[in-house]
Parts: sequence; C-alpha cells; structure tokens
Amino acid sequence: MRVVALAGGVGGAKLAYGLQSQVGSDLSVVVNTADDLERHGLRVCPDVDTVMYTLSGLADREQGWGLASETWNASGMLERYGEDVWFRLGDRDLATHIVRTARLRGGELLTDVTMRLARALGVSATIMPMTDDPVRTQVRTDDGWLEFQEYFVHRRQEPVVHEVRFDGIERAVVPARVGGEIGFAEAIVMAPSNPIVSIGPILAVPGMRGLLDAARRGGTPVVAVSPIVGGRALKGPADTMLASLGHEASALGVARIYEGLVDAFVLDRADAALAKDVGALGLQAVVTDTVMTDDASRARLAAEVLEAAKSARR
Amino acid sequence: MRVVALAGGVGGAKLAYGLQSQVGSDLSVVVNTADDLERHGLRVCPDVDTVMYTLSGLADREQGWGLASETWNASGMLERYGEDVWFRLGDRDLATHIVRTARLRGGELLTDVTMRLARALGVSATIMPMTDDPVRTQVRTDDGWLEFQEYFVHRRQEPVVHEVRFDGIERAVVPARVGGEIGFAEAIVMAPSNPIVSIGPILAVPGMRGLLDAARRGGTPVVAVSPIVGGRALKGPADTMLASLGHEASALGVARIYEGLVDAFVLDRADAALAKDVGALGLQAVVTDTVMTDDASRARLAAEVLEAAKSARR
Repeated sequence: MRVVALAGGVGGAKLAYGLQSQVGSDLSVVVNTADDLERHGLRVCPDVDTVMYTLSGLADREQGWGLASETWNASGMLERYGEDVWFRLGDRDLATHIVRTARLRGGELLTDVTMRLARALGVSATIMPMTDDPVRTQVRTDDGWLEFQEYFVHRRQEPVVHEVRFDGIERAVVPARVGGEIGFAEAIVMAPSNPIVSIGPILAVPGMRGLLDAARRGGTPVVAVSPIVGGRALKGPADTMLASLGHEASALGVARIYEGLVDAFVLDRADAALAKDVGALGLQAVVTDTVMTDDASRARLAAEVLEAAKSARR
Repeated sequence: MRVVALAGGVGGAKLAYGLQSQVGSDLSVVVNTADDLERHGLRVCPDVDTVMYTLSGLADREQGWGLASETWNASGMLERYGEDVWFRLGDRDLATHIVRTARLRGGELLTDVTMRLARALGVSATIMPMTDDPVRTQVRTDDGWLEFQEYFVHRRQEPVVHEVRFDGIERAVVPARVGGEIGFAEAIVMAPSNPIVSIGPILAVPGMRGLLDAARRGGTPVVAVSPIVGGRALKGPADTMLASLGHEASALGVARIYEGLVDAFVLDRADAALAKDVGALGLQAVVTDTVMTDDASRARLAAEVLEAAKSARR
C-alpha cells in the first residue's frame, strides 16, 4: 500500500516511523521545511532531520529530536568563537548540515540532497521536503514578527502568537517528485503535527492542495491524526497557538481546520466525546489510543490509521 | 621587540610559541595559506590553524596539529554520508572551519577572520595569512600534478616531487596589515618550516620579497632557522623534497635557498660542521640546539634566535 504522509517534527516523525514499519519503502514522507534556518552559514532543516533520524533509528528517543549519544564539542568551540549558539547543534548532527549545505551550494536540489542523506542512513521510506524553495515561517508577537526558530527555540515558545505567515510561500513550487508520490498514493496521512506551523506550510505550497484534492477525487483516502489530546499538545505549542489564533485548542479545533481536506480523523480516547462533533463535520471519526510511547504503539497507531484509510476509501 | 615570523605548520608553530613566550603581543606570525583546501564545502587552513592552536595552548602536543582531546563524531557521520574523509577533521576543529567559512562568505577578509578567531582563543600574538587571495600549492609527481594535501595527507608524501608550483600566486596580494607589521618589525624570523612549500609560498606572494628587502635595507635583521637537522626533516617531507628538486638535503641546502634574504642562519649542533660553509654564503651561522621538545626548549631557541637578530642588526 503506497502511503504519503505529511509531517512536521517529533510527533509526525513518530507516526512516520510506525507507517514505515507497516509499508516500508512504500512510504513517502513530505516534510515541512518552513522552520528551516541558517546557522553558522549552514542550512539546517529541523523537521526533515527529525524525520530522517527517527526513520533511520538513530534519533535520540528521549528528546525526540537530534541523534542518540550525541556530543557537543563543536558547539562549545563555536561559542568560544563568539557565535550565538541558542540553536544547539550536536557534532554528528553538524555533519548532516555540512553535507547538505555543500551539496546545495554545489547545485543539487534539496529534494535530491534529502533523499541521498536518508538513503545513506538506511531509511527505507522516501523523505522529501515540501518544496525546494526557501519558505520561512514567521510569527507575529507583541515584540513584532519573529522568525519561527527565534520564537520556538530561542524564546521557548513563550510569546503569544497573534498571526502566522510563510514568507516566500507564493514563489514556492511543489517538487515534481512530491506530485508524483501523491498521484500514486493509495492513502494520504496528515501526521499528528502542529496543524498551523507544521502541516500548514505544506498545505500552503501553491499547488499542494490541488494535488491532494485531485487524489481524493480519484479515490485516495486522506486521514488526519489529531496532535491535540485532551486539549493539550503532546509536544510543542500547538494548543496555545490554536487558542491565540482563534481556534479551539482541541481535537475538534484541529478537525475543523482539516474540514474539506480529509475523509477520516483519528482522535484519542481521551477525546471520545468529541467524535460526534467531528462526524458532524463530515469526517469519519476514529477513536483510539494516539499517544505513541514505544515502537509497538507507533506500529499499532499506524496500522489503525491505514485501516481507517481503507475503510474511508471511496 | 617587535618580531615578525614567517611560518608553515608544526615546526613553525613551535618556534612561534617560543617567540610568543619572549615578546607576547609584539609577535606577528605570517602564515602560509598555499596548503589550504576546501573539504565538505568548508575552507580549511591547516597551517594557520596549527599556528593558532599552538599559540593558544589548545593544540594536541603529541601530534603537533589539531586540538587536544579532540573527538571525531562528525567525521564518522560525514563518512556515513559517503563523503571522502581522508582529510580528517575533528569535532572542535570543524567549528573553526565552519565559522571561518561563514565569515568569508559574509564578505570578511581572511586576515580579519583569522585575527578574530585567534583573539577568541586567547592568542596574544597576531596571526595573519600570507594573503587574502586563493593560492594553492601543487606538486608534479609521476602521477602528474597533485593538489598539495592530496600529496601530503592522502598519499602520505609518498610520490616523488619533481616540481612545485603555487597556483594563483601571480594574482595574490600581500595584505596591508602584513606589510605594516614587516615595516614596523625589529626582527624578522623564518621559522624552521619547509623552505619549499611552507616558507616558499610566503616569499612568492608578489611584493613580499620587496617588503623584506626594504626592511633589511632599513636595518631590520632577518634570521632563519633550519628545519633540517642531520640531513633529516624533523617533521614532513622537506628532506626528500629538497633532494628530488635538486637541492642538498641539509641545513646548508636550506641556507643556500635563503642566501641573499637573511642575515643569520641558525643550525643544529648536529650540523656544526656546516657552519663554515653557511658563513661562506655571507650568513652569520649560529649553532645551537634547534630541536624543540618542550616549552622550555621552545623558549630557549626563540631567545637565541632573537639574540642572533640583535647581533646581526646593522
């Protein structure tokens, strides 16, 4: 079963790991790149790398991002040279950014660079950036517009987000390879990532919604998994961001954002009471355990998501 | 006493360390950059870094280059990504190349980048590249022309060198800052580095010999220290390279190369028998222990070199 997942960082990577355990190389993951940044002259793709490290089995499972058994010696030296190291890069992680940057400067597309890196790490799934073009999420706070990672990492998601924009999005293009994978997909999954700043940019790439709509019209089911459980984001600021942007900070709030885009919506048992309202939006509500604490729960949730896709197939 | 030293890597760095212990911030070291290279998209300056790490006290004293207590985690990952890692870069060392590359790309001159990096590491002396322009040493072997580090590191100095050239040298310019330091110098020292591929490129930068000649005419003594002891290079391929290029592989052979450029020539007690021939070249021969095995011997040799300069002052 050929599956395309749209994903951001940690939560999306976990479900992608589960999906890879179910369909192996039949999985393609289209990853948000709007939270990319340049640090010390290197191109850093936090979400792509989280997905890549997770799918390769090399991720630090405690923190969800970065590599296991990482060391921080280069970072200490960068700091000594007067570099701002609030976005900390581990030694082995740095190698990823060094190689990516060198290959991009050499003229390779981010899509090709990403696929080669992931293959080198033994990832069976195909990992693709949402676009080869530069897109940068910016959030408006009481201190004005901030670059996403400035808000997310440097300011620890503390400022209230009043508005979100994806700088450069209007000039971005969906890579042909992503279009092809969506066309061939037998199921499309919106991973449990932040609907505003992780899935949001992917859907905002011009042409992306058209591709997803065309796939749905052709009978490909689209299933979303709620990143909100019991009104709280399992990771990151999705809950407070939903609220400050005028959405309901709940699985139902997420379902409303995806209304018209997805056929089925997977929500946690903790939110079973919301299933009826989700159903009323025209989405098939699937209630199950959505918190992925280990490999087994990642695999089980992925299997249920694929079952939901099959039963939603029109 | 304001001192300018011309230096390559390990041997030159040791004497520079000794000179710094004698005159502190009155030392300026002009370093060879013709063995620079680009690895993984990063600008690597092996000689500059060896001098910088040595003068900061952070060098690995066993091997003479690189940083003490270095780790190699990024390198392992680079290899995993299919990168050629014959020029191994440690994790902390990588930070140097990352910062240098970012600042050069940002438009800073190598001279300024180098001075800032050295200052950040607490170096009291001023370290300056011989030029801000790209110059690359290439050596002709039976396998044709090789880039210097390809010969030096990758092929372990095994190919016989028939010819040496400094690609780009005719377009290189002496940085104004280097010109100024030479003008202010009260002594100029040619460190015990390879006369062909370490000191050679520095002297070959258009304008450099003129600056040194002008300083000598103005009364500034120039002292060279032989990198050859008992017919052998203490480090590196200077001896075999001298021989294959038609020079005598001895302190006298080195003195002949510097003839007309220096006032005094320091050679090891092992080569005391050559002192007369050195004197016959018009150089004041100074015989002493030149092998620097610890801080004390670095300081002692430096002090003797400065004494030789004083007595050679005209």
